[in-house]
Amino acid sequence: MAWSNSADKALRERAAAVIPNGMYGHQSVAPLPDGYPQFYAKAKGAYLWDADGNEYIDYMCGYGPNLLGYGHPEVDAAFTAQLAKGDAMTGPGVVMVDAAEAMVRQISHAHWVMFCKNGTDATTMALMIARHHTGRKTIIRAKGAYHGAVPWCSPSPNGITPADRADQIFCDYNDPASLEAAVRLAGSDLAAIFAAPIKHDVFVDQEPLDPEYARRARALADETGAVLVVDDVRAGLRLARDCSWSLVGVQPDLSCWGKAIANGHPLSALAGSEPFRRAAGTIFATGSYWFAAAPMAAAVATLKLIRETDYLERTIRIGDRLRKGLDEAAEQHGFRLRQTGPSQMPLIFFDDDPGFGKTYFWISALVRRGVLMHPWHNMFTCAAMTEADVDATLERASDAFALTRAAGRIEPIEALLARTR
Amino acid sequence: MAWSNSADKALRERAAAVIPNGMYGHQSVAPLPDGYPQFYAKAKGAYLWDADGNEYIDYMCGYGPNLLGYGHPEVDAAFTAQLAKGDAMTGPGVVMVDAAEAMVRQISHAHWVMFCKNGTDATTMALMIARHHTGRKTIIRAKGAYHGAVPWCSPSPNGITPADRADQIFCDYNDPASLEAAVRLAGSDLAAIFAAPIKHDVFVDQEPLDPEYARRARALADETGAVLVVDDVRAGLRLARDCSWSLVGVQPDLSCWGKAIANGHPLSALAGSEPFRRAAGTIFATGSYWFAAAPMAAAVATLKLIRETDYLERTIRIGDRLRKGLDEAAEQHGFRLRQTGPSQMPLIFFDDDPGFGKTYFWISALVRRGVLMHPWHNMFTCAAMTEADVDATLERASDAFALTRAAGRIEPIEALLARTR
Repeated sequence: MAWSNSADKALRERAAAVIPNGMYGHQSVAPLPDGYPQFYAKAKGAYLWDADGNEYIDYMCGYGPNLLGYGHPEVDAAFTAQLAKGDAMTGPGVVMVDAAEAMVRQISHAHWVMFCKNGTDATTMALMIARHHTGRKTIIRAKGAYHGAVPWCSPSPNGITPADRADQIFCDYNDPASLEAAVRLAGSDLAAIFAAPIKHDVFVDQEPLDPEYARRARALADETGAVLVVDDVRAGLRLARDCSWSLVGVQPDLSCWGKAIANGHPLSALAGSEPFRRAAGTIFATGSYWFAAAPMAAAVATLKLIRETDYLERTIRIGDRLRKGLDEAAEQHGFRLRQTGPSQMPLIFFDDDPGFGKTYFWISALVRRGVLMHPWHNMFTCAAMTEADVDATLERASDAFALTRAAGRIEPIEALLARTR
Repeated sequence: MAWSNSADKALRERAAAVIPNGMYGHQSVAPLPDGYPQFYAKAKGAYLWDADGNEYIDYMCGYGPNLLGYGHPEVDAAFTAQLAKGDAMTGPGVVMVDAAEAMVRQISHAHWVMFCKNGTDATTMALMIARHHTGRKTIIRAKGAYHGAVPWCSPSPNGITPADRADQIFCDYNDPASLEAAVRLAGSDLAAIFAAPIKHDVFVDQEPLDPEYARRARALADETGAVLVVDDVRAGLRLARDCSWSLVGVQPDLSCWGKAIANGHPLSALAGSEPFRRAAGTIFATGSYWFAAAPMAAAVATLKLIRETDYLERTIRIGDRLRKGLDEAAEQHGFRLRQTGPSQMPLIFFDDDPGFGKTYFWISALVRRGVLMHPWHNMFTCAAMTEADVDATLERASDAFALTRAAGRIEPIEALLARTR
C-alpha cells in the first residue's frame, strides 16, 4: 500500500476547530518535516501505525516512554490486572509500597521516592524541596537544558513574568568554570544546582557528561550546602539501570524520573537521599491521579524487566548498528552526518546543513518510507527493535539519501537557521 | 468479619521507609481521624476495600474522579480497548479529536480545549494564557480557594519564595465589593480573575455561588480586558452537564477541568472561548503523557454517559437522602449538624464543635463500620450509589452518633482548633 495522509489531513482539519493550532506541546508536528503524521491509530513493539494505516519503525518511542516496546505484554498485564482491581481510589493502592521499594532498590542514591504524573511535577518538587531544605532561593541550571513546562522552567517566554524567573542563574553545561562562576554569583543564597544527565538539548549536538563537571557540581553543592538535582526524566533507565550520573560515580541528592519508568504508563517520580527526606515530607505536592495504582503496578513490572533482562545492552546494540549503518549509507551518497549522544538516544544532523534543510528533506523522505526520525530532538531505540528493523531502516535511509542527493541544492529553513545562531 | 487494620499498619511501616512520612499529598491520612485506611486493595462501583479486606461505602470517590462508579464497565471498556491499540505514542491518538470535540460540545462557553494530566496543569495553563493574552501580570484569586499544588498556587508556604506569589491579589469569594477592591488595586495590570465554581474550601462551610458575584466578575473582566477563569477541576460535571457557572448564566473565558471528566482515568483539560485561542496556541505547555490515547477514549465514553444518563439527578437524589437522613439521625441523638454545599458534594460538621473533636470521633466510628467520610474536605456522591447504600450508611451513622453521645465530653483537636480561628 502506498503511503498517503488523507485521513491525517482530515483529522487535522477537525482538530484545528477544537484544539489551538490543531495540536500543541512537544507532540505537535507543526515544526517537523512535511508529511509527518499528527495522529496515530495503533502501536505495538517498535512500530506505530498512523490514521491512514501507514506503518512506521518509530525511533521517537513516544518521546521516551517506550523503552521495552509499545504494549509490552508483561507490563501491560500488570497494569490491566491492577486496573481491574482499582486505579484512582480514595487512597493509593497497596502496590504503591511495592513500587516505592522497587524504585529505591533501583536508584543507588535514593532512600525515598515520591510519585507524580508529569516530569515537570518531579522537577518542581525538587525545586520546592531544595528551597525548603536550604531556606534559600537561588537555583542554577544550564542554558538550553529542558526541565519542564511550567512558568519557572518553560522554554518559551510566552505567558511568563520576570518574577517567574527570579532567583535563577544560568551556566554552561559541562563547563566547570561556568558552574563555579554561577555558584559564586549565587553567594550565600544557593538552594540547588539542576543538571541534565547528559547534554540532550534540542537543536544542538548532544554531549556526554564531563565527569569533571559532575564532580565539581557535587563538590560545590557540598561546599555550599546546596542540593544537587539530576533531571533524569528523559534519559533515566536508558543510560544505566540506576541514575545516569552513577556512570561517572557521582550521586545527586535528588533525581527526577518519568517517561520510561512504567514503560509508557503515566507515572513520574522524585527520588531523594536521606538528608532531604524531612524537607520532602514538608512541602505540599499532589495531583488528582498521582496515587492511581495501575501505573504503579506497571512500574513494578517494568523495574523487574530492567533488572532481569538485557534491555539496556540491546538498545545500545541496536543504536550502534543504526549509527554505523547510517554513517556508511550517508558516505555512499556523499553526505557526512553528525551523530551525537549515546547510541540508544541518537541525534542525527547532516554536517554542513545550517537551517536543517537537508535533514528535513531526508526525514520527510524517511517518513514516506515508514521510518519516524526527528530532525532536532534526540531519538530513542527500544528493546523491541530488532537487527532486521535496523537493516530495513538503513535500506530506506539509503533511498532517502539518494533522493536528497538528487534534489541538489536544498534551501535552509529560515526559522531554524535563526536557532543555530 | 470484624474490622481490623493490621495489614494497613504493616504497609504503613514499609511505606515509612521509602516514602516521606509514609505518604504525602491530599491522600495522606495523617491528618484524618484514627483508623482511616491509608492503602486500598480494590474498588468497584461505590465501594472500596482496604488492605485488610474491610469494605467501605466511599463518600470520597477518590477525591472526585469517581463520578459514575469505580471501574465503570462502559468507560473502562473504552479505555482498555484503546489501551490495546495504543496509549502513550509518538503523537496523540485519533481519539484525541473525538475527545476534544466532545468537550467543546459539552461546555457551552468552549470553542477549544487543551488536554493535560493534573488539575494544576489546567490552572497553570490558564495563568500563562491570561498573562500572554493581556500582556499583564496580576491575577486575583479568592482567599482559601484551592487552585493547585505548584509554587504560584500551593496552599503551603513551604518551599515557596516571595517571587512565586508576586503579582497576586486576594479577595473574598462571593463578596462583590472585595472583588471590586481587588480589581481597583490591580489597576491597569489585571490579567485574570480566578474563581472556584462554588466555595468549596477545606475546613469551612461550603457556600453556593452568589450569582451577583459571578456577574460582577464577568462585568469586571469585560471592563478591564482581564480573563475570567473558572476552576471547575473538582466540581466539573457534578453540578451541571456544563461549566458550573452556567447554572447562574455566566460564561467564563477559560475553564479548568479534571477529576471526573474521564471517570478516574488520568486526564484534565483547559477549555476556552474563541478570543483566547490565539494566546492558548502560543504558550508552551506539555507533558510526557498528556496525549496518551486511552484516557481520552475514557473521556469520550464518560461524556456520552453524561449526556445520555440521569447520573446527575441520581447523585443529587442520593445526596439529598443522605443529608436528610443524617440530620434526622443526629437529632435523635441530640446533635445538630452543619451540612453545606450541594447535596452531591456534601460537607458535614457537627455544630458547636470547635476543633472538630466530635466530627473526628464520629468519623472514626464510621470508618470502623465501613463508611468513608471526611471531616473537613467536601465529599462526593457517585452515580453507582443506591438508596440501599444510603440507608445502610444512615444505620451505621446512627450507631456512630450513639457512640459519640456516650463518649460524653470530647476534647477538641488542638491543631485543628487553630484552623478555625
